[in-house]
Amino acid sequence: MIIRGIAASPGIAIGRVWLMESDAETTKAPVNIKPAAVEAEIARLMQAIAESVIEVTALRDQLLAKGKDHEAEIFDGHLMLLEDEELLDRARNAIAGELMAAEAAIAVARDEIAAMLESLDDEYLRERAADIRDIGGRIIARLTGRSDMPPSGGGEPVIIVAPDLTPSHTAQLDPAAVAGFVTLQGGRTSHSAIIARANGIPAIVGMGDVLADLRAGETVILDGESGELHIAPSEIVIAEYGARREAEQAKREGLQALMGVPSVSLDGVHVELVANIGSPADAVAAKERGAEGVGLYRTEFLYMGRDTLPSEEEQYDAYVSVARTFGPIAPIVIRTMDIGGDKELPLLALPKEDNPFLGYRAIRISLDRPELFKTQLRAILRASAHGNLKIMFPMIATLAEWWAAKALVDACKAELRAEGAAFNDAIECGIMIEIPAAALLADRFAKEVDFFSIGTNDLTQYTCAADRMNQKLALLNDPLQPAVLHLIERVIRAARAEGKWAGMCGEMAGQPHAVALLLGMGLHEFSMSANAVLPARGLIRGIDQASMAALAAEALELETPDAIRALVEARVPAIRQA
Amino acid sequence: MIIRGIAASPGIAIGRVWLMESDAETTKAPVNIKPAAVEAEIARLMQAIAESVIEVTALRDQLLAKGKDHEAEIFDGHLMLLEDEELLDRARNAIAGELMAAEAAIAVARDEIAAMLESLDDEYLRERAADIRDIGGRIIARLTGRSDMPPSGGGEPVIIVAPDLTPSHTAQLDPAAVAGFVTLQGGRTSHSAIIARANGIPAIVGMGDVLADLRAGETVILDGESGELHIAPSEIVIAEYGARREAEQAKREGLQALMGVPSVSLDGVHVELVANIGSPADAVAAKERGAEGVGLYRTEFLYMGRDTLPSEEEQYDAYVSVARTFGPIAPIVIRTMDIGGDKELPLLALPKEDNPFLGYRAIRISLDRPELFKTQLRAILRASAHGNLKIMFPMIATLAEWWAAKALVDACKAELRAEGAAFNDAIECGIMIEIPAAALLADRFAKEVDFFSIGTNDLTQYTCAADRMNQKLALLNDPLQPAVLHLIERVIRAARAEGKWAGMCGEMAGQPHAVALLLGMGLHEFSMSANAVLPARGLIRGIDQASMAALAAEALELETPDAIRALVEARVPAIRQA
Repeated sequence: MIIRGIAASPGIAIGRVWLMESDAETTKAPVNIKPAAVEAEIARLMQAIAESVIEVTALRDQLLAKGKDHEAEIFDGHLMLLEDEELLDRARNAIAGELMAAEAAIAVARDEIAAMLESLDDEYLRERAADIRDIGGRIIARLTGRSDMPPSGGGEPVIIVAPDLTPSHTAQLDPAAVAGFVTLQGGRTSHSAIIARANGIPAIVGMGDVLADLRAGETVILDGESGELHIAPSEIVIAEYGARREAEQAKREGLQALMGVPSVSLDGVHVELVANIGSPADAVAAKERGAEGVGLYRTEFLYMGRDTLPSEEEQYDAYVSVARTFGPIAPIVIRTMDIGGDKELPLLALPKEDNPFLGYRAIRISLDRPELFKTQLRAILRASAHGNLKIMFPMIATLAEWWAAKALVDACKAELRAEGAAFNDAIECGIMIEIPAAALLADRFAKEVDFFSIGTNDLTQYTCAADRMNQKLALLNDPLQPAVLHLIERVIRAARAEGKWAGMCGEMAGQPHAVALLLGMGLHEFSMSANAVLPARGLIRGIDQASMAALAAEALELETPDAIRALVEARVPAIRQA
Repeated sequence: MIIRGIAASPGIAIGRVWLMESDAETTKAPVNIKPAAVEAEIARLMQAIAESVIEVTALRDQLLAKGKDHEAEIFDGHLMLLEDEELLDRARNAIAGELMAAEAAIAVARDEIAAMLESLDDEYLRERAADIRDIGGRIIARLTGRSDMPPSGGGEPVIIVAPDLTPSHTAQLDPAAVAGFVTLQGGRTSHSAIIARANGIPAIVGMGDVLADLRAGETVILDGESGELHIAPSEIVIAEYGARREAEQAKREGLQALMGVPSVSLDGVHVELVANIGSPADAVAAKERGAEGVGLYRTEFLYMGRDTLPSEEEQYDAYVSVARTFGPIAPIVIRTMDIGGDKELPLLALPKEDNPFLGYRAIRISLDRPELFKTQLRAILRASAHGNLKIMFPMIATLAEWWAAKALVDACKAELRAEGAAFNDAIECGIMIEIPAAALLADRFAKEVDFFSIGTNDLTQYTCAADRMNQKLALLNDPLQPAVLHLIERVIRAARAEGKWAGMCGEMAGQPHAVALLLGMGLHEFSMSANAVLPARGLIRGIDQASMAALAAEALELETPDAIRALVEARVPAIRQA
């Protein structure tokens, strides 16, 4: 029997089921205390919180010591939540006003806040509900002396099946004891999914109600790539997956050998293989996976899931942090915020749109709200004193927009100069090429900008008029559609003609067929998800640019994506096998 | 005091207010009859309906005699409604079951059906509610002997102000007695608005509750262009509008002189000035306004606002009707159905989409549902025996889509051949160029298709990634954006290189600045709303193609729409004055 959930962390795990229960049982019924005991009960609560702070701090420091900055950051968030007045006030009120025991009071406060966050139409805030539940559970564990952690070593590794896993649980999972985990709730961007990926623990989330089909102790196979859980697999299937697990392990080790070697083709053409990131923590993870810098820092995540706009200082800190991760020479391309489209920001109270992908978003908002935009530009400029930062504007369609954005950069530079603040006056400014209009005018833009970065996700959806989230239009939403490929070739050619560099930060930049063609077209910089960097480096080191140029020219004559894929595979057999 | 409504029919009217009341007063309270009288009351109702049929038939025939086929068609619809079983059954039940008098019974039946139609989320069906109210009122007038018609001649023309005007009322308005009308309800596409435009009666609809501000007999100015109603205007304002009314009249007469003369530039280049239509009635109106054929027949209106799909016969009749209107030589470009986007069709039960403009629509649906598509193709092919019909596919993005659509045309031809049905085997097949991908591959498409028609509304919104219905993005949504202009020039050039013709059926084709540039680029066919045909002909007869070619080349070097507009106005001063 095979059940499918959301693939959250790749890899194959084979092991016995370990059913983990939530702490809901502990705290279901409020326990009444006497009025005279209120003060003591509040003191008990404060003590448990103080112990939790010590515990979380230790957990964070352990992770930092292992270089796992990203995961450590999650616990920084927990430390903030532990000091959250809202949670504390609600719990204290429940004790003093309703005479609840501390564990019941914190459970009620936690559930109320979590339920409130979960009811919001904002994925980020919904995920924060899991954090609240996590620290609530931790405080309760301190109060009750109970823990719901899995065993930490010895015996055959287990596959944990739990309603949900808190980030605390996930970060403390011992890979020697836990082969993988399945949660019934949660999504791909939940913190436990992120931590699982970072720790290389195969995982499936959002599996739904499978408990009826599972017995503790039975052997299951978890495929974190496909999101499939095999219940009661046959010996043959177990052997097959065992072999696949070993092959993957060998492949991982092969990729590891590509860490630190240059990204250079057989005929000596160097390219930059950089990463798309959304936070300073992603930068750390990207560097660990071989990225040579950042080709796209999606700064909108600084703005999302919060009640106030990020200050200049806050943004400056984030940008400097990324710069420090990669050192002074590695390129760090910071894209100014791309809010709108499918990324909503309730804070800006933007009107609901009929076609958000064709809507009021990114630079269109930034140019309308110069005060907002300048805060970000000042932060980037100041951070440019600490690394090789570059500014990139998203959703540019017209020269007029570029002129207006550039003028605001100049205005910020003048302000900073007057203030005596340090910044890199020669900082490069470039644009995303993700709207057909900009691609069509690439020759004009190339005379003025310092670089292009082609955003193929949007460029493809606009060029083919096909929503990239619409499954029915997947065939149209293919960057190997000849029309899109022509546009890309035109953009790269326009950049080279003016001696500017052209990069790509859409998903295409990490796809093997595309990497071969783009190398041939003369793309300088490939920005992709961190996991794609080493495979791309391996591919590029095995092909030569001159042959790929001929291949690309031939591909541009073809009429369908399938024909183009077949041609690439015929010329570069490694791609077919990949 | 100026109040604004929805501009429904252009022109200026100055006159005294004539307040018209609805027939609601007549029928408010149900009048009870005796059980013995039921049979006689039903006979009375049937008699009134029979008289109404005679009356409506006469009205239709009068309109037909005047060549007003479109308006006549509305009364064909009324004749069908008069025979509608639903209305009759409900009224009969009210008489027999609730002992209502015939006038009350028909009023109740009418109101129930109209309310049901009005509650639907479908503009077409909501408008049909007005038709039901119209015939209900007519039957009641026959039953009661009362009429609520305005005076028909003699004295100063009045401006009617009414809650709503039925098509019957509107069609019977005597232009000698009625200078214009204002309705408090209704929209631009209501039948009364259509008839007002056809009869040249200035009108404003959907004015809302203005009755408090109006007194019967006072002088008002109605501006059907701006939708403004001036209440108690000063003598100066009246004089000003009087002068404007005369100037407009003179302009209309000037345009009338362009009827029937060729659309040819000063240096002898002939172009085709054709119309965008949505129905056979539009074709009649377009021909009356000087159109030389049809550049875009929006066939989706055949599918909308009904419970069943239109049969092959029904479609065939519509296409033949348009062909007969224009005769055997005039080109009639029939676009296969463009459902989806902002045109919903509940009948097909299409899923709700996040970005309908980038969604599952037009040819994407047609190719997925060949049985639906072939019905339309067979109807067009059969109708091609009666005129110069051409088939045009909307929303083509890839060559593969074109091949698939063309293959279905060939399959239909084979079927018809086997059936011995007549059709034009050499019928031209072309594509809309409204998706950037198709424009970018125009040179490839030009080798295979018979013609292009550039759909600038969609092409602009996709090229600039800006929803054309989003007011905030109006500056981006400009077909004179240099990127769009480049794409258009490329498409026209590609067609000419292969000896094919290129047309345009987006709104741009009727805009003076664009007409000058497009003539210069070598566009063969301009398809526009019928009202724009004569002004465009006047413009083209006053410029020469060679100068416009130089102008277009210069315009393509500019960087903003404003700069392009200014250049065109500097070279063709007539455009600035227009």
